[in-house]
Amino acid sequence: MTLEAIRYRSGSLQILNQLLLPHQTVYEDIRSVQDAYEAIKSMKVRGAPAIAIVGCLSLAVELRAGTGGDDPVTFIRESLCHLTSARPTAVNMGRAARELMEFAENESMEKNSEQLRESVISWIEDMLERDVNDNKKIGNYGAQHILSGVPRDSVTILTHCNTGSLATAGYGTALGVVRSLHALGRLKRVYCTETRPYNQGSRLTAYEAVAEGIPATLITDSMAALTMREMDITAVVVGADRVVANGDTANKVGTYQLAIAAKHHGIPFYVAAPSTSCDLSLESGRDIIIEVRPPEELTSINGVPIAAPGVEVWNPAFDVTPHQLITGGIITELGVFLPSELQAALTGRLTAL
Amino acid sequence: MTLEAIRYRSGSLQILNQLLLPHQTVYEDIRSVQDAYEAIKSMKVRGAPAIAIVGCLSLAVELRAGTGGDDPVTFIRESLCHLTSARPTAVNMGRAARELMEFAENESMEKNSEQLRESVISWIEDMLERDVNDNKKIGNYGAQHILSGVPRDSVTILTHCNTGSLATAGYGTALGVVRSLHALGRLKRVYCTETRPYNQGSRLTAYEAVAEGIPATLITDSMAALTMREMDITAVVVGADRVVANGDTANKVGTYQLAIAAKHHGIPFYVAAPSTSCDLSLESGRDIIIEVRPPEELTSINGVPIAAPGVEVWNPAFDVTPHQLITGGIITELGVFLPSELQAALTGRLTAL
Repeated sequence: MTLEAIRYRSGSLQILNQLLLPHQTVYEDIRSVQDAYEAIKSMKVRGAPAIAIVGCLSLAVELRAGTGGDDPVTFIRESLCHLTSARPTAVNMGRAARELMEFAENESMEKNSEQLRESVISWIEDMLERDVNDNKKIGNYGAQHILSGVPRDSVTILTHCNTGSLATAGYGTALGVVRSLHALGRLKRVYCTETRPYNQGSRLTAYEAVAEGIPATLITDSMAALTMREMDITAVVVGADRVVANGDTANKVGTYQLAIAAKHHGIPFYVAAPSTSCDLSLESGRDIIIEVRPPEELTSINGVPIAAPGVEVWNPAFDVTPHQLITGGIITELGVFLPSELQAALTGRLTAL
Repeated sequence: MTLEAIRYRSGSLQILNQLLLPHQTVYEDIRSVQDAYEAIKSMKVRGAPAIAIVGCLSLAVELRAGTGGDDPVTFIRESLCHLTSARPTAVNMGRAARELMEFAENESMEKNSEQLRESVISWIEDMLERDVNDNKKIGNYGAQHILSGVPRDSVTILTHCNTGSLATAGYGTALGVVRSLHALGRLKRVYCTETRPYNQGSRLTAYEAVAEGIPATLITDSMAALTMREMDITAVVVGADRVVANGDTANKVGTYQLAIAAKHHGIPFYVAAPSTSCDLSLESGRDIIIEVRPPEELTSINGVPIAAPGVEVWNPAFDVTPHQLITGGIITELGVFLPSELQAALTGRLTAL
């Protein structure tokens, strides 16, 4: 059974409160746009795709309940504006809001309030379904590509951070590849790094693996190279915050170091990301600005200090892996591509093999 | 001022309680061999050289107070046996005990109890002084070697784990090199990794740096490669648990990964270790067994769980860096040697340049 981070059926929405993970598994009702706003702002739900999905689904719930009355377009506009402001850096919510608003305005020209309401709800439900389906395609393309390179019966994967059901609408990107390998009966084991300083690996990826019975071993980030040497790792698979035109990839800090270690050991290194995470407007990773986050993420855990008081801290949230180190390929819902093929593939000039 | 982890003057010994670091700085009196045994066993003092020094100094304190009466040799033998049993894997205490016992037995043939007592106390005090002096030589040789390779005014060092005053009799090995550079006014900054899972970097190295005003920045282990690329790192300097004949080096887990990243960036990688940490009886690192420690070190901090319950854990305490990756050299109290020169240097067939 796949872990459900988002439970939706027409008129009803629940989310798994990620602030309480891994110690408590608590689903909370999201009955309104305001509930979703607060859940996003307080990080009960995180991961850029998941934020957009939960925000839009909360709007669908309110539309189903009749909120907005005779002027649903105004209600939709105000709701999307409010939702986008909860985490301004989460681009997916902003993109979804723009697309949905354009759709709603077009529909309003030829439909009455009731018809408009229904078509917007359908659009949102399609968005949920599309995201999960894209992730499953990523999982299957990635699994097949990895298996095509190894004659052995089962494979061992190393991954980083959390890219699973908890970060997306469901299934996941890099962890979706792991799920697909497991479903095929071809996964021997996945090694997950704890992913300091926010511990997405030990808290979230480990939680998903335990919940679904995927054989998983937790290691510290510093053990990855040793694991590659000692544990017969078949491939390293990570997610992406942004893939730019030449294939350079921004992802959770530590990804660059993993890619260097994979190269040193001759292990293929894959990035798994939907095409919506690819940003062809930037030419190379040098154009990506590295977000630096507060020192407290390193110096305390759950509010308890764990470092010497007064020490300076550098806390970049992500790093950029140059495309030369992405030796396995970039796994998208359209297929697996070499970094050099990505641009052509996404603009329709190349078909997946 | 150098941080004092061990305060000794004739007849009096105090240690800094490392269990309370970095939050409290508390010195505790060690008045007897039994006090030292308990401090070692409970890990108030840690680091193989420091354990041996504190154990032997506690014996000196008791001998000064007259314990052992007319038969000091029996008292010395029983005390050393007891001290060695506190942490059986700490080889330095065992080696010091054998050497000291041999010395005491030889002395007892031609000296009376009072004379024997004095000469044993002198031997122990010499041991303390020798360890600190060896570390200072390591610091100076290392600093000069690093500076000889760079025309710039000041250097930036990246280090791992804790190899400072808190792990030795004083000054430190890799952190001793950093101290020497700082004393010469040539240290721009040291980056220290937090060193999961036991956080020796964030707890101890950061504490030493803050205490002495050494400009230091704490990073997670996963940020080391990004730091090498972005922060103009001059050299990576680490300590060693054991250096074998071909130069392969066992050290705190994560060292291997740092060495790979340093190689990728063309940054010289140094190991700093006294000749007593070199074990010429083993030919290569393949002969070193990797100690695997309890999962709880990863899954909790100060007893508070931080990982998903039920996940499997692999927790190797150290890794082996092949000599090919030790591109800067091995810094000893005899000089700086390439791994290929080490054996000749330690057996007197090669002099430091």
